[in-house]
Amino acid sequence: MHALQTDFYELTMAAGYFAAQRQHDVATFELSVRRLPEQRNFLIAAGLAQAVEYLQNLRFQTDEIDYLRALPQFRLAPAGFFDYLRDFRFTGDLFAIPEGTPFFPNEPVATIRAPLIEAQLVETYLLSTFAFQSSIATKAARCTLAAEGRAIVEFGSRRAHGPEAGVLAARAAYIGGCIGTSNTEAGKLFGVPLFGTAAHSWTMAFGDEREAFQCLQKLLGENTVFLLDTYDTHNAARLATELGGPIWGVRLDSGDLVQLSREVRSILDAGGLSSAKIFASNDLDEYRLAEIVGAKAPIDAFGVGTALATSFDAPSLSAVYKLVELKREDRVLYTAKFSGEKSTLPGAKQIYRFEDRDLLALQTECSSDFGSSPLVRPVLIAGQLVEALPPIEQSRARALEKVAQLPKNLLALDRRAEHPVDISAKLRDLTENLRAQHQL
Amino acid sequence: MHALQTDFYELTMAAGYFAAQRQHDVATFELSVRRLPEQRNFLIAAGLAQAVEYLQNLRFQTDEIDYLRALPQFRLAPAGFFDYLRDFRFTGDLFAIPEGTPFFPNEPVATIRAPLIEAQLVETYLLSTFAFQSSIATKAARCTLAAEGRAIVEFGSRRAHGPEAGVLAARAAYIGGCIGTSNTEAGKLFGVPLFGTAAHSWTMAFGDEREAFQCLQKLLGENTVFLLDTYDTHNAARLATELGGPIWGVRLDSGDLVQLSREVRSILDAGGLSSAKIFASNDLDEYRLAEIVGAKAPIDAFGVGTALATSFDAPSLSAVYKLVELKREDRVLYTAKFSGEKSTLPGAKQIYRFEDRDLLALQTECSSDFGSSPLVRPVLIAGQLVEALPPIEQSRARALEKVAQLPKNLLALDRRAEHPVDISAKLRDLTENLRAQHQL
Repeated sequence: MHALQTDFYELTMAAGYFAAQRQHDVATFELSVRRLPEQRNFLIAAGLAQAVEYLQNLRFQTDEIDYLRALPQFRLAPAGFFDYLRDFRFTGDLFAIPEGTPFFPNEPVATIRAPLIEAQLVETYLLSTFAFQSSIATKAARCTLAAEGRAIVEFGSRRAHGPEAGVLAARAAYIGGCIGTSNTEAGKLFGVPLFGTAAHSWTMAFGDEREAFQCLQKLLGENTVFLLDTYDTHNAARLATELGGPIWGVRLDSGDLVQLSREVRSILDAGGLSSAKIFASNDLDEYRLAEIVGAKAPIDAFGVGTALATSFDAPSLSAVYKLVELKREDRVLYTAKFSGEKSTLPGAKQIYRFEDRDLLALQTECSSDFGSSPLVRPVLIAGQLVEALPPIEQSRARALEKVAQLPKNLLALDRRAEHPVDISAKLRDLTENLRAQHQL
Repeated sequence: MHALQTDFYELTMAAGYFAAQRQHDVATFELSVRRLPEQRNFLIAAGLAQAVEYLQNLRFQTDEIDYLRALPQFRLAPAGFFDYLRDFRFTGDLFAIPEGTPFFPNEPVATIRAPLIEAQLVETYLLSTFAFQSSIATKAARCTLAAEGRAIVEFGSRRAHGPEAGVLAARAAYIGGCIGTSNTEAGKLFGVPLFGTAAHSWTMAFGDEREAFQCLQKLLGENTVFLLDTYDTHNAARLATELGGPIWGVRLDSGDLVQLSREVRSILDAGGLSSAKIFASNDLDEYRLAEIVGAKAPIDAFGVGTALATSFDAPSLSAVYKLVELKREDRVLYTAKFSGEKSTLPGAKQIYRFEDRDLLALQTECSSDFGSSPLVRPVLIAGQLVEALPPIEQSRARALEKVAQLPKNLLALDRRAEHPVDISAKLRDLTENLRAQHQL
């Protein structure tokens, strides 16, 4: 399952390690983000559950092995390599920070310690899983901050990067603080609460708003939401008051939401529908939400689509997966890359969080020396779960709680401040020694 | 399969149409893009093959139906609706422009004509499929133009929006003009040529470039590519000349690619490796490619990752799926939305391309009146393929050919020109009549 959803060079390297009889080396790779996108002060971790599912179910099917065997690049590969793939299981360890935890550049979101080939093969899938969901959870956290307590529903599936991306974005947006999603599969798979009533096409299919609204009300009862802006928003709002309850409220999806929401609120209140709520959408993002909330528009809940499901203003993270240690015949080799802006820090690392900064130390350093709990925790040991992953509501609650605990200047929507990530004396020494060694 | 990968409101509307006994109405929806992203002069269609696969295999599983039935929003839904879902098949028609065809705002990339519920349910999946792949194919076409004949390999899977997005991006990038991908699954599923040799971690795992390069050469023979910049690019280039062939070439992945490629070219030529090629990567996009090509850097091929697999500067298209016709009891109702900037054109439409403009006409207008072949073609009739879809190489060839035929000013990387999309007299009359009718 999923075995070929990987960069081809992971497989050529795997064959090469096998040919060089390096398959028993134990590698430690760290997955981290090189730098924050502009206009992000923090990131929220998400994707761990899918990473675990992948690692525990990763298998090569016969047709996949046959496909690889026939490729010209594997002409010289040792025959034993394909037997190795047939029996492949992930037998290594996974350490990670819990989903919903804020993190910063160079901090290990996830650490893999496994036989070299296993650790290498899983690179591509893990990177896209953690980086994508983390970028969406982060965007959702920003929208949640901007909405100042008003509810946000994610409904960007139609603009997501393919159907699976829509499902995963819905999950990550919920972790980041949304109250639910329009993505039905995310409801079934992950228990994310579902929202949705009717589109403009519903009104258009009836020709007439009266019949369209009545049919919807008959079906949805107190969950009914009248979409007002297919033809004329004010007329539709007056029709809503004429029809009366049961109703949850109305939805605005175009035009000046601040102005329209005030006018519609007046019409609803005057018509005896003061308990009906106003839901608004229309190319919203955290900046637009902040403006609308700042203008005190009488909007009770928002739908955020494209900007959220694609993290539009930062559609990728500079996520990397770097070899930091290699154990070979009982000797541990620390590794790093020293090529200018792409340099990395050697050694498996741990994260300690303080009020105003983080500290990166070696995983082998004693955590009681630092006066803070370590953030990176064991998740899989020898391929097996250490404990069940928390339910998704717990990850969502964690994000809300931990974001609120960040320094206040990090909660601004624009890039206000850098959260310092210091490195321990031992980690600094190891890095300098290794660099000197490579410069000899 | 995939039945719940849809917005929840598609399902509430479906239940509502069923309750209102509207399931035999025949709806026509058009999928189009509202406006071009900034810095795009054209779009390239992609995603049709996945749309067809989805429509032909769409089924509701028992557990999916049970999940829906238990939701509070379906408490009032008629019981017959769930039997309807159990037997659901897509029985409608799909019309589309062939993959690899350039298109412009408001033009129907795909048209669905089907019983109302079927046509509504497939909205979300079709939008994300066509819009995502088209945005990536477009980005690839732009990179291909910028590279002026040099080969481009897509390798952004690790930064794509989840694993499936990586596979689909690889497919779309190939249609848009790339010569291949790093995504192994895209090789197996779609026959996209695969590229990849080794990462920095390969060199780091051997500690020593000599052993790393030798092992790679033993495995890959004439496909060998030495990655030069793990520690010191110049030293590694000299080592390559010392080792000699067989070799395809070398790869640069950091630093000033123009300067480094010149220096490395000199070292290779002086060392007897003048036939070895130089492959370059490092956060490239079409703008950087144009600079590098403009500087006449001796680079033979490029790897483009993040910017391509996420369409970084335009990570979504304003794709919409709008009801344009509804046939009820043998009466055809034309429909449109008249809400300001989100207004749409009624009626099923056809696209005619001329040298300097396109024309949108009603599908019912006689194409011989226009002196150009219609671009929208039948793909599925009553759920069945009209003819086999073309092989992917043909879609790629079409994109290269049709992009070259566009007006020259559309081929610039920046937004130079608008390609006019005119509307026929009959379509204009229909729109005006309908608008007047709604204003009565």
